Amino acid sequence: MTQAMMTAPQDALADAVLNGERRALARAITLVESGRADHRLQAAALLDAIKGAGREALRIGLSGTPGVGKSTFIESFGMMLTGMGKRVAVLAVDPSSARSGGSILGDKTRMERLSRDPNAFIRPSPSQTQLGGVARRTREAVALCEAAGFDIVLIETVGVGQSETMVAEMSDLFLLLMAPAGGDELQGVKRGIMEIADLIVVNKADGDLKPVAMRTCADYAGALRLLRKRPQDPQGFPKAVMVSAYEQTGLPEVWAEMETLTAWRRDQGHWASRRAAQARHWFEEEVRQGLLARLTASPEARARMVRLGEEVARGDRLPGHAAEDMLSWLGG
Amino acid sequence: MTQAMMTAPQDALADAVLNGERRALARAITLVESGRADHRLQAAALLDAIKGAGREALRIGLSGTPGVGKSTFIESFGMMLTGMGKRVAVLAVDPSSARSGGSILGDKTRMERLSRDPNAFIRPSPSQTQLGGVARRTREAVALCEAAGFDIVLIETVGVGQSETMVAEMSDLFLLLMAPAGGDELQGVKRGIMEIADLIVVNKADGDLKPVAMRTCADYAGALRLLRKRPQDPQGFPKAVMVSAYEQTGLPEVWAEMETLTAWRRDQGHWASRRAAQARHWFEEEVRQGLLARLTASPEARARMVRLGEEVARGDRLPGHAAEDMLSWLGG
Repeated sequence: MTQAMMTAPQDALADAVLNGERRALARAITLVESGRADHRLQAAALLDAIKGAGREALRIGLSGTPGVGKSTFIESFGMMLTGMGKRVAVLAVDPSSARSGGSILGDKTRMERLSRDPNAFIRPSPSQTQLGGVARRTREAVALCEAAGFDIVLIETVGVGQSETMVAEMSDLFLLLMAPAGGDELQGVKRGIMEIADLIVVNKADGDLKPVAMRTCADYAGALRLLRKRPQDPQGFPKAVMVSAYEQTGLPEVWAEMETLTAWRRDQGHWASRRAAQARHWFEEEVRQGLLARLTASPEARARMVRLGEEVARGDRLPGHAAEDMLSWLGG
Repeated sequence: MTQAMMTAPQDALADAVLNGERRALARAITLVESGRADHRLQAAALLDAIKGAGREALRIGLSGTPGVGKSTFIESFGMMLTGMGKRVAVLAVDPSSARSGGSILGDKTRMERLSRDPNAFIRPSPSQTQLGGVARRTREAVALCEAAGFDIVLIETVGVGQSETMVAEMSDLFLLLMAPAGGDELQGVKRGIMEIADLIVVNKADGDLKPVAMRTCADYAGALRLLRKRPQDPQGFPKAVMVSAYEQTGLPEVWAEMETLTAWRRDQGHWASRRAAQARHWFEEEVRQGLLARLTASPEARARMVRLGEEVARGDRLPGHAAEDMLSWLGG
């Protein structure tokens, strides 16, 4: 796909996105979300066209289990940022939506104030797709938001399966939002998640929960100290902090920590090298997914997989032999 | 690979394996473990040659974390089975061996009595391979042991990452060996593992630990009752039982449970349908692995992946565009 292949409507859409027009951005995201072949071609041309702008937002990945207060946090944190004159986009990744219809609400009512803010853009999670497609689509939506001039792109996900790792692989920094909890629950935090978090934010540090939140925060801080130091972290990171999204306390401190961390990473070259490594990762992942997609790409391929699978299941052929058959049929 | 392409040495080796010659079996397993292209061809011919025998062993998958007493259990359980006139093969799957040199001991000293038993065959885990290769190699070793006339093939693995699921996918029944433990540790058992276990065997029900083992066994029984009933289970399964591998108590009861379970599954057709589904699974998995292997199969492919990866990392190309380039270069 080259610039020359672009059709006029994509040119106009690209211009409108680059001008920061919200409706154009919304339409552009709808385009990259589509699975239709002609839409994919148009989306590729669009992404090519906006790439030249070279605009970069701070990409913040955010995860937390349901009930931890993600919506309230995003609303309060987002309002604080827009109050500072920053433009904030919020994208939701919900891998469960394919099955359940989504545990992240599809409408904007859960972040009512932020969704009315002219400096904020909230895009709910589309439903009915697999994780592979979600990753591509979300990365492309992030690129569109950056091209539209947003300073900060918040990528939100529920803590389910592989979605946190996926979001971390497209973020400059990763926040894990937690509720005040007892020691037992702390042990239940997956080690892998602790290892990708840059900040653990203990929410609901208000009212009766405040003492519990303080203890929880100290517990996480202790747990984080046990992790091996990562080269991309300055002294003291990853860090556990405490906020009340409801009472809007602790939020400037969270932002200050983020600024410290990103400034250090920019200075040390970690920012650029992380983005480079992420781009390479997604290239390799798309190649892998593209190869595997050949197994289901045509009716002939699907029929052959089914027929060979049945021969193997009946015991007429060994799995390895049938696999060789399929692989040589696929060519290469 | 057809029968006609077989070379004479493979014919002789196949005959010797089918005659149950232990040294031939050991050599045959070494052959299927080899990654050399000519060895792979010979291995394929060998597997083709033995397939006709149609011999079937009971394949028992066995997992448990280090320290739970797997070696002692296998030795005591294996000796009981050989004492009943059965021929028992033990294969070890150790995915950690690639990194650490192996947490399952490579020598036979840990099952000293069983390794000297003429009706037993113990094959330690080879080192330095990835999980994909481990799966194929282990399945082929299982097929060789079956062809050599073993009645029971025990496939042992440490509870690390994906290895338990992999072993379960090549077993007729799956045992999870556990140590007596408090309620907290019980909660740490991964739900996915509970769901693939047919029997949870609480070991070390001897001496001071006996009361704890009884409580642990009851706890697991309770946890198992909470799981959704699987169609391949008769009433009362999956089950938690208690043994002392050291004092050799409870082992005939474990065997009786296994016989009950397998007899029921054979009657109901679940045995055959499970084997068919497993064969199909491995066919599909080999196709997937074979496709992905093309990315590293030739120096040209590797060089192209590296070059495109660098262009993407530098920001010269979008991940999706570079992926399309690679995929069209790979053809198909």
